[in-house]
Parts: sequence; C-alpha cells; structure tokens
Amino acid sequence: MDDFELACKGLYRALAIREKYMRLAFQRFPNTASEFLRNIEGEKWKPENQIQPVFTSPPEPGEDPFNTKTLPPNPGYVARMHEGVVFFHTKTYTHRRLKFLMSKFNVHEMLNEMEEMKELKNNPHRDFYNCRKVDTHIHAAACMNQKHLLRFIKRSYRVDANRVVYSMKGKEMTMKELFESLKLHPYDLTVDSLDVHAGRQTFQRFDKFNAKYNPVGASELRDLYLKTENHIGGEYFATIIKEVAGDLEDAKYQYAEPRLSIYGCNSNEWTKLSSWFNKHRVFSANLKWMIQVPRIYDIFRARNFVPHFGKMLENIFLPVFQATIDPQSNPELAVFLKHVTGFDSVDDESKHSGHMFSTKSPKPDEWDIVKNPSYTYYIYYMYANIAVLNQLRRERGLNTFLFRPHCGEAGAVTHLLACFMTADNISHGLNLKKSPVLQYLYFLAQIPIAMSPLSNNSLFLEYNKNPLLEFHKKGLVVSLSTDDPMQFHYTKEPLMEEYAIAAQVFKLSTCDMCEIAKNSVLQSGLSHEEKVHFLGTNYLKEGPEGNDIRKTNVAQIRMAYRYETLCYEFSLIKEGVKGD
Amino acid sequence: MDDFELACKGLYRALAIREKYMRLAFQRFPNTASEFLRNIEGEKWKPENQIQPVFTSPPEPGEDPFNTKTLPPNPGYVARMHEGVVFFHTKTYTHRRLKFLMSKFNVHEMLNEMEEMKELKNNPHRDFYNCRKVDTHIHAAACMNQKHLLRFIKRSYRVDANRVVYSMKGKEMTMKELFESLKLHPYDLTVDSLDVHAGRQTFQRFDKFNAKYNPVGASELRDLYLKTENHIGGEYFATIIKEVAGDLEDAKYQYAEPRLSIYGCNSNEWTKLSSWFNKHRVFSANLKWMIQVPRIYDIFRARNFVPHFGKMLENIFLPVFQATIDPQSNPELAVFLKHVTGFDSVDDESKHSGHMFSTKSPKPDEWDIVKNPSYTYYIYYMYANIAVLNQLRRERGLNTFLFRPHCGEAGAVTHLLACFMTADNISHGLNLKKSPVLQYLYFLAQIPIAMSPLSNNSLFLEYNKNPLLEFHKKGLVVSLSTDDPMQFHYTKEPLMEEYAIAAQVFKLSTCDMCEIAKNSVLQSGLSHEEKVHFLGTNYLKEGPEGNDIRKTNVAQIRMAYRYETLCYEFSLIKEGVKGD
Repeated sequence: MDDFELACKGLYRALAIREKYMRLAFQRFPNTASEFLRNIEGEKWKPENQIQPVFTSPPEPGEDPFNTKTLPPNPGYVARMHEGVVFFHTKTYTHRRLKFLMSKFNVHEMLNEMEEMKELKNNPHRDFYNCRKVDTHIHAAACMNQKHLLRFIKRSYRVDANRVVYSMKGKEMTMKELFESLKLHPYDLTVDSLDVHAGRQTFQRFDKFNAKYNPVGASELRDLYLKTENHIGGEYFATIIKEVAGDLEDAKYQYAEPRLSIYGCNSNEWTKLSSWFNKHRVFSANLKWMIQVPRIYDIFRARNFVPHFGKMLENIFLPVFQATIDPQSNPELAVFLKHVTGFDSVDDESKHSGHMFSTKSPKPDEWDIVKNPSYTYYIYYMYANIAVLNQLRRERGLNTFLFRPHCGEAGAVTHLLACFMTADNISHGLNLKKSPVLQYLYFLAQIPIAMSPLSNNSLFLEYNKNPLLEFHKKGLVVSLSTDDPMQFHYTKEPLMEEYAIAAQVFKLSTCDMCEIAKNSVLQSGLSHEEKVHFLGTNYLKEGPEGNDIRKTNVAQIRMAYRYETLCYEFSLIKEGVKGD
Repeated sequence: MDDFELACKGLYRALAIREKYMRLAFQRFPNTASEFLRNIEGEKWKPENQIQPVFTSPPEPGEDPFNTKTLPPNPGYVARMHEGVVFFHTKTYTHRRLKFLMSKFNVHEMLNEMEEMKELKNNPHRDFYNCRKVDTHIHAAACMNQKHLLRFIKRSYRVDANRVVYSMKGKEMTMKELFESLKLHPYDLTVDSLDVHAGRQTFQRFDKFNAKYNPVGASELRDLYLKTENHIGGEYFATIIKEVAGDLEDAKYQYAEPRLSIYGCNSNEWTKLSSWFNKHRVFSANLKWMIQVPRIYDIFRARNFVPHFGKMLENIFLPVFQATIDPQSNPELAVFLKHVTGFDSVDDESKHSGHMFSTKSPKPDEWDIVKNPSYTYYIYYMYANIAVLNQLRRERGLNTFLFRPHCGEAGAVTHLLACFMTADNISHGLNLKKSPVLQYLYFLAQIPIAMSPLSNNSLFLEYNKNPLLEFHKKGLVVSLSTDDPMQFHYTKEPLMEEYAIAAQVFKLSTCDMCEIAKNSVLQSGLSHEEKVHFLGTNYLKEGPEGNDIRKTNVAQIRMAYRYETLCYEFSLIKEGVKGD
C-alpha cells in the first residue's frame, strides 16, 4: 500500500510537470487529465483555462495562400534565448496497471466487438475509406514512392536533356552532361539501379539507410531532384511534391505532414527555404508543413561552419522570431510560417553522446567542442525556443507551432522522458516498450504517437514484434504514418499500404482502423476549422461526447470504454495521492 | 545406409508415378526430373518426348476471340468415363534433406545476395514493377475489391433504379423494389454495411467466410451482382469483371486467372455459362479462365437434384466432350472452351468424409448415398476425365486443360498425395508443412503452388506462420495470388498488395520477388506465345539456360543455384536407388 501511494505521487508529479510545460508552449494536455489533477489539488477545473495550438485556417475560396498584405505590422519587439530534467521510481505499479489495461481491452473486445461493428454498420455514408486520415510523419525528400521518382527522372530527361541543371566546381552542366559524367542514361534506369529502397541491408544500419536518399548512389541526383536549393532553384523537388499532393487531393480523404529541413548551419536557410516555397507555390490543402532539424551540430562544428551550439540555435530560431515580430521584413518567410505547423527533431537516436544534461551543463554559447550535445540537450533548447516563440506568436494573433520530435525509435529511454515534458506528440515511441513508467504516463497524458511499423521493419524492429497493437489495446494514442514512402513502400498509395498491412498483420477491426485514423487527425496540424469539418464540432471534448460517429466511424461503445478506462486509472491515482 | 536406399527407391517410384500421370493428362513434368529418372533406369532421355499443355493463342490484331467459324468439324466420335492410390515410408530422410535445403539457401543468400542485386542493377529497363505477374488463384465472384463492389452497386442504382432486375416467386421487381424489400437504400450503403470483408470472425470458420459472399448478408444481391445466371443474364457481373480486366490492362504487367463455377447439378450449366461469356463478350487479354467445381454432391443428392455421383460427373464433363467432338453443335461453348485453361476443385478441405478411396470403393454410378465422396475420390475422377479429354482435344488440334485443384489448405495430408499424382499445380499447399515426404516430392517434381497468405491469414493460418518463405527458400515453386480480393484486400491493386505485404513481412529481396513473379507466369495458363514474350524464347528450358534476365529480372546466380541444388538432390537419389 505504501508502494501504491509512492507510485501515485510520482505519477501525479510527472503529469503536473507535463501540464505546466505544455501550457507554456501552447501545446496540448487532455482535459480529463487536467480535471483529475485539479481535483487531487482540491481545486476546481475551469474549462476556459485550456490551451490549444493555433494553426492557420485554410484559405477562403479565392483567397491566395501566398498573400503578404494580411501579415501583422511590427510592434517594435526585440528577440533572445534557456533548461530541465526529472526522474522517478517504482516500475511495479505501472507495470501492473499496463497489464491490467491490456487484459481489460481484450475483455472489452470479446464482449463488445460485435456491438461495435453493429454501430458502424448502422452508420450511413461513412466507412474506413472515407474517414479522414493524416500521414502524421513523412519526410518531404522521400514522400514519393520509388516508382514515382523513377518516372519523374525519366520524364525530366525527355524534356530537359539540354537544359543547364547543375554546376560542378563552377562549370555549368546540362542534364545530359550530368548523366554522362555519372556514366548513366535515364532510359536504362530501373527501380533496382535507382537503389533508393531499404532492404535487409539497412536493418540496424542507419548509416546505410541514410545513403539510400541518393538515387543511384549519386549525391548529385539527390541535389537535383530532392533538394530545395540547387542550380534550378529546387524546381524538380517542388514539382514532385506537388504531384504527391495532387494524388492526395484525388484520394480526397488523405492528408500528409511533410518535413522540410532547417539545419542551423547558416542564418539565411529560412529565407532560401521560404523563397522556394513561395516561388514554386508549394501549397496544397492536403499538406501541412513541418520543419525538421537534424541533430548534426558535431558535423558543422568539425568543419568550422559554426563556432558553438548557441549559433546553431540562433540560425534555427532567430529568423523565425524576426519574421514574427516584423513580417514585412521577410514577407516570404512570414507567409511560409503561416503554413508551418510544427518542429521535428531528427537523426539516428542510437548514436551515443555520453553527456548528461543538468544545470551544470555548458550553456549553448559555451558549447564549442566538436562533440554533439545529448538528445535531451537538443530537445530542451528546441522546446524552450518554441515555447517563447509561441507566446509571442499568440500575442500577435499568429498561428503557433507544435513540437513533435522523433523520439524512442532507438537509443536511451531518457529520450522519452525528455519528450514527456516537452513534446506535444512524438514519432515512433518504440522504446516505451522498455519503460512501464513512461508507457503508463504516455497513456495517462494521452500523448499521440505517430508509429511507422514498415519503417521500423526495415530499420529497427521486425514487423510482428512492433508494439503498435499492444499500445493501441492499452489505450495509448497511436496513429499510422509512412515515414519514407520512397524507401519503404511498394504501391501508389503508401498510407493505405501502411494501414492495410497493419490491418492484416495485427488483425485490426474496422473500429480499430477508424480510431487510429481519428487519432491521426487529432495529432496533426490540421486547423481548427478542418478538424471541426472532419471530426465534428465537439472534437475537443474528450470521451464519447467528443466523438461524432457520422464523421469518424468510431463506435460510441469504444469511445465510452476508452474514457471510462482512463478515468478509472486517474481515480486510482487520486486515491493513492490522497492516501497520506 | 539401408534407410537411405529405401527412401530413395520410394522417392523414385513416387516420381515415376507422377511422371506417368502427368503425361497421360497433358500436364507438366520437369525435364530435369525426367532426365534423372531415365538416367536411373539406364535409358536415354529424349527431349522430344516432353509433353506440354496447349493454351489458345491470343487473338491476332483484328481477330475476333468469339469467332465460331474456325472451330474444327465433327469427326464422328462418341464419349464416356475411371481409379488410383499409393503410399510410402520413412520421413527421416526427406526431413533431413529439407533441413539441408533450407540451410543451403541461407548460405547462398549470405554469400550471393549482393551479387544477385548487382546483376539486377545492371539489368536495364526491367525491375519488379514491369515484370509480368499472374494472379494464379482468384475467384471471379470475389475478384473486385469491396470498395469497387460498393461503388458499382451505388452506380447501378443511380442508372437502373426503375429497371426490372429480379423476380421473386414469379413476381418481377425493379431494383428500387428489390432494395425496398431488403429495407435498404444503396445511398446509405458503406463498406461496413456491405459486410463482405473477412475479419477475425472468419478465422477457422469457413462457413462464416462463405456467407461473406452475400452483400449486406442478402443472397438476392449476390444473385444480382455476382452471378452469371439471373434475371438480367448476369449483365452486372460481366460488367464488374470487365472493369477488373480494364484495371489489369491499364496496369499492363498484371494478369489474372479467375474461376467460374460449374456445379454438375444440371447438364445445361455449360451452355448457360458459355452463353453469358459470349453474349457479354467477357474477354480480356489479361484474363485466363478457369472452371471451378465445388465438392458439394451431398447437397445436390439430398435435394434429389442428381441420382448418383456419376450423374454429377456427367453433367460436368460430357458437355465438354460433346463440344470438343462437334464444336458446331454448341459453338458458344466451343468458343468459351478455347479461353478456358484448366479445372479447379474447390470447397472446405477441413470437412471430413470418412470414406477411404480404394479399388473396392463404389463406382460413381453406384455412389447414390447422400454422403459426400472423399476429396481423393473427387480428385481422381476429375483427373481421369481431364486426362481423356485432353487426349481427345490434342488429337483434334484444340487447346488442353490443366488440373489445378485447391489442395492442402486444410484437412488430411492425403489430399496432397492425391494431387501429387494428378494435378499440374495446386492452390495453397499449406499442409506440406506437415509432411516432409510430400514436401520433398513437391520440391523434386517442381510442382507449382499458388499461395495466398492474406487469405490464409483470415481463414486458416496467421500471416507470420505462413510457410511461403520456408517453401521458397527450400526451392519449392511458389507464386503469390489473392484468392478473394473482395474479402481480403484493402487497396485498388490487390495483387500488388499481396506482393508488398509478403515483401515486407518476409523481407523478400527484389530477386525473390521477381522469381516468384516468374513462377506465376510459368504456373499460369498463359499461352506459349505469351510465355515466350514475357519470359524469353527458352522459357521451357530448365536452369539458368531457360532464364532471360532481361525479361524476368531474376539473377542468373539464383537460377544456377536452384538448378544445381535440384540436380544434386537427384544425384543423391540416383546413388540410393543404384545402391542395391
């Protein structure tokens, strides 16, 4: 009984910390959890206190998404830069709770599966095919499938063989000359020689996987086709992305959140990226943009591109602050930022850094060694900047950003701890398998997890060992995403392929699939207006009240089960906390 | 050593039996196996003795596939009706050989995987996407996916609501009236209410699975949309099939072999079926037709539709003999038969019959009890009729038929024994897992097996327990097929979905996938001309000689490995047989 109370107090503290951090950064914390926390504290929960992120509304019919005239004026602000860690004990309690949650779902399934199906059968017009689903985690540079890229390369050669598309050591080259220098002819290219698909060779080899981004192993072709900055101003890359967007628009019910990179190596990266975005008008109602920041300070420092880590952070964030304070100083960036919905932190999590982040750690400006800071260090400083940025943007009536890092794909479980305190939602989360405490906390705080079992299957974990089904049964909020269709998928509809395989291997019911699709919409950066349209007016309410089966095709029985189960776990914690 | 010789003699005898049975029926037996058998017998193998099935050539440009003028005249023949069983011992030897084959392939893979990939990368124009692949096992009544059927029903209602499409107890009904009588409106229909997809409920329940053929659980809708005989002459079913064929033609590299049913309940079934085929001109270069005969004599006998089993066989085969002898007596059937490439035997194999088939078994005309004959009894009589029929058709210069039964999906391993002697190739073969002797024999005789792991996953065996990968590694000839896209698949390209999932779950290499695609073409009823076009002029030759990598994208290293491995096993058997 002592153990029970100790565990509940720890869980209470952890949740209170996440709640505070989420509020600060305009990220999300579920009402159900807030209500219980206030209840434990003997306070009254006020629904008006809840915080929601703000995403740019979709353009009105006829409205130009690239319009710079509606950007707000400069109020005359100036911009600058901040730390955090916690720990906790006793795994037994959370392990027991998770086992219970699993068994409880199995019983629910056995008792109510047919009833859930009956609800869905009686729900007219709506089935899994016309439920909205968002590909919550996808990298722009690999958002087309391998066959699409191959066709694009061949087509570009037929049209543009004599166009200057590349410059090597100052010498300009036509596409024909470029391919000749690589001893290739696009006509002969096949999916095999293109060699961008992950295979058995990439398993547990992130380095080999990363090399797959180079078509035919040639970084020149990656530059030409998959980059925003190159001799042709990223024209091909923009065209490919717009083709992918066109497919999503045709499919009508599918959305995607592609990641574009900001490296922090140079202060003009944002200007270049937003200029590419505006020039090629890379806008689609079915795409919501994310910025990914690779954790590769060590590479830039070794080449003397940056003097210290602080400079990298400055390159990443200061331009965004400036364009927020005075949008007209960089209208293209200010417009681009309206369509950005969040930040991702990316790289191989299995790499070690050895540094333990604490109050004694060097400040970013003091971090001038070549060694890379730890995952936690990166996460903290990204969170802190996003939190301040969101406060500013909210005040200015602008859209806010979510922090949605890759987390728990590999490496230490501390990554998942850092993100529990800082991230609105995460990608992967596989390592929650290894920590019952964190897994239970991610359940309690209902932190969305974008899972990509096909990606994991090629990199870190075999498909049938993927914890997606287990997490879903226990009530963690999981969505399905493709990560890199170029490397992992075979068909023309990668997101449907991802759902189809999960449905088959895990034997998901229609209700399971629609619940996962619903989770993906909630997790995403789709605007309030779109979420109302896709999920119903009450979508922000938790439990069955917030579910409109006519839109989601998720059974009310399922929603009631989820809500009651979550509330029961909270009431146990309350009992434990009050025990003393 | 005694054991070794005993085992080899048994294997030799078994193979000799299959060879004889295949020759008799114009079915296939590999040259490599024949050459070793002759070698053991001290005889010289003559390549000119090999027998090949004959499939109708594709129409010349402008040629009408429904032309009846080119059918041969009646030579004045008369038509009639025959038995078989064997057994063998010692599992240890074959079990050891199979284990060896598995390990040998693993070593081959570790040593040569990169070399195989190199061959494929250097192979211009050809990759997995433009290799020909045949869906070797698919039922016409479930050849569209659930979403396709749903769209078709809604569309038909928009156009034909006031058309008389059904008659119930003599009363004619419009489509509107039919749907009203079912208390349905097509506008409200969803994939969920359509309820044709297999789910967890169908696992190990073939009865529940069969019920899924009824849209919305209504047999009236199955009649209207998925039958060749109904009030509208099977128009909708023909249209749906032609739409599926259109998709395959667009995909260009995909073919399918749909099964249509002949029940043997009535002697005019063939006339009706071929009339439907000709009237609606259900022809596509991407479809090859198969006839499936359900093993449901017991149902017909119980309702007094047939007096004995002999009558059922007569209803199934006599019309085909007659149309073979005198095509002009039933030109529509004679034309249809040109496009039929084989016979399938279908039903739930897990049902028991209890009867042991032997020389003492009642002859078909004496089988007048309500009890169903055993699987073996059905298989023997189908084989025997097909053998005689093929002799006759060959003599008349007509195309021949392959016997390609469902076998080893469930039930006793004796099914696989019966088909070892009688079938050119089989569907499923899961139970080869249970018998090392038969598994080894299927390997030696290179009997193609159309496997459908997604179908099995919903019915008999979980996906990751499917023996496909194991069989493929050991050198059994496997292909991939969908069985029933309506019940099992989610995407618009069911065959690609089947390949994609197998590739992901089993981590198949490109070479593996292309080898499986090549197997599917060889197994199929595509004509000699088409096989030459798709696989190369030497496709009938075994080993690397028969492989044209430019067409198949299968590495020569792989083909050499397969051929040497097979020959080595034969040379061991020869040693064992000669030992005495």
